[in-house]
Amino acid sequence: MESVNRRTVREINQGEIREKEDSLLVELPLTLEVNGEEFVTMLCTPTNLDDLVLGFLFSEGLADGADDLAELEIDEQEGRVRVTTRRRHELAAKLYGKRTLTTGCGRGTIFYHVTDALKTHRVESDLRLSAGTILAALKGWGEKAELFAKTGCPHSAALLTAEGGILCLAEDAGRHNAVDKVIGRSLREGWSRRDKCLATTGRISSEILIKVAKADIPVVVSRSAATDLAVALAQELGITAAGFARGRRLNVYTHPERILP
Amino acid sequence: MESVNRRTVREINQGEIREKEDSLLVELPLTLEVNGEEFVTMLCTPTNLDDLVLGFLFSEGLADGADDLAELEIDEQEGRVRVTTRRRHELAAKLYGKRTLTTGCGRGTIFYHVTDALKTHRVESDLRLSAGTILAALKGWGEKAELFAKTGCPHSAALLTAEGGILCLAEDAGRHNAVDKVIGRSLREGWSRRDKCLATTGRISSEILIKVAKADIPVVVSRSAATDLAVALAQELGITAAGFARGRRLNVYTHPERILP
Repeated sequence: MESVNRRTVREINQGEIREKEDSLLVELPLTLEVNGEEFVTMLCTPTNLDDLVLGFLFSEGLADGADDLAELEIDEQEGRVRVTTRRRHELAAKLYGKRTLTTGCGRGTIFYHVTDALKTHRVESDLRLSAGTILAALKGWGEKAELFAKTGCPHSAALLTAEGGILCLAEDAGRHNAVDKVIGRSLREGWSRRDKCLATTGRISSEILIKVAKADIPVVVSRSAATDLAVALAQELGITAAGFARGRRLNVYTHPERILP
Repeated sequence: MESVNRRTVREINQGEIREKEDSLLVELPLTLEVNGEEFVTMLCTPTNLDDLVLGFLFSEGLADGADDLAELEIDEQEGRVRVTTRRRHELAAKLYGKRTLTTGCGRGTIFYHVTDALKTHRVESDLRLSAGTILAALKGWGEKAELFAKTGCPHSAALLTAEGGILCLAEDAGRHNAVDKVIGRSLREGWSRRDKCLATTGRISSEILIKVAKADIPVVVSRSAATDLAVALAQELGITAAGFARGRRLNVYTHPERILP
């Protein structure tokens, strides 16, 4: 399936009308069935769908890794994915999206889903990167973000090595999906993530931070902002979070020792 | 509850370290209970929560208007909203998030939730706005987007009159929430929306377009991109969709007659 479609659009520029061909990002409603039951309909860009599905299932506690998927059948035309997992993660499936913690339940004051509280732990890592390395990687990734170059639409996420190499980069209409694609890829490839940095164009909200924590990634950097809740979670989980990484500067919100000036 | 928190952050700028005070946007997990049952946990910015709840319930087919809410109790500290509706919308509640249409079911080829297909209809409106009016409103709204000015984080959405006046503007960490807040406000105020334009900083995805359609808003304009699926829905539903409205230009994707050069 194409991930970009061409359309004729009307550009109005300083009062002048011009009809032109433009490229629009495809948004595919993809319904995920897990062990025969409909689980969720995601809106996504049809690239690296196997990575997306694996990363999503991992983030939601429905798969522990690539080996956990006995079957993975993707029908792009129908917009359906059928997954069979080797082990049943019934609690995670049952609790998906449900708020099950309120204040007072141990670490529950800042977690709002019980599976997040159970599946995350403090990330331990000796990773050190320089701010210049991160900024150079962000500057250089324009060439790899092909769909953005064509449409100006998707978010992207990438896994960076300590030296600033881009191990993989994924784009998606949804910033959550771009992160899930990168995590899914790392699971399939068997890459260590504890010595890597996740960089993203999207904001670091609590949901993104929790994905990063579950994937055991010690550093997350965004071109955009981070929310207060994401920063509180990063502080608690030992994750270095940085934002507004643009040009020659960035802001480090938590555990700044991992980012060298 | 504050919508912005202050934190000390480390800025690294061209190799120089500086500790500074920064403002971070608050992200509140808000669990919505409808008629005694937990429905969803939204992540939102704690402003205009009554508008958010009403707009969300309207968008999801669980309320037809402000009169439909018999009780609305918001506990920000606990992060809970309890709503009692005058009428039960059991089908909408049951089908929430479920994919229930596939190809072949009438209009089902581009709708993925049955309630969307049922609750939307072609928007009829004689509204005409000039591109210059829209661009001037977008340029001028910086002053009203206070949380963005402080944190650089939230999206915003606004309802514009034909003359380019900003009737109301709402900000939120989530672009969907910002739109729901604006729609909720319009419902509470009893404003006509058929002669208004919804402007937003966020991308026009299919979910945003469907909210606009259900609210009977004939024109939606974004500073960012629109997806191909959103444009296809706008075409079918008679909605004028425009994107990349920045500086002195914009792209009109569908039904261009409503935007004058």
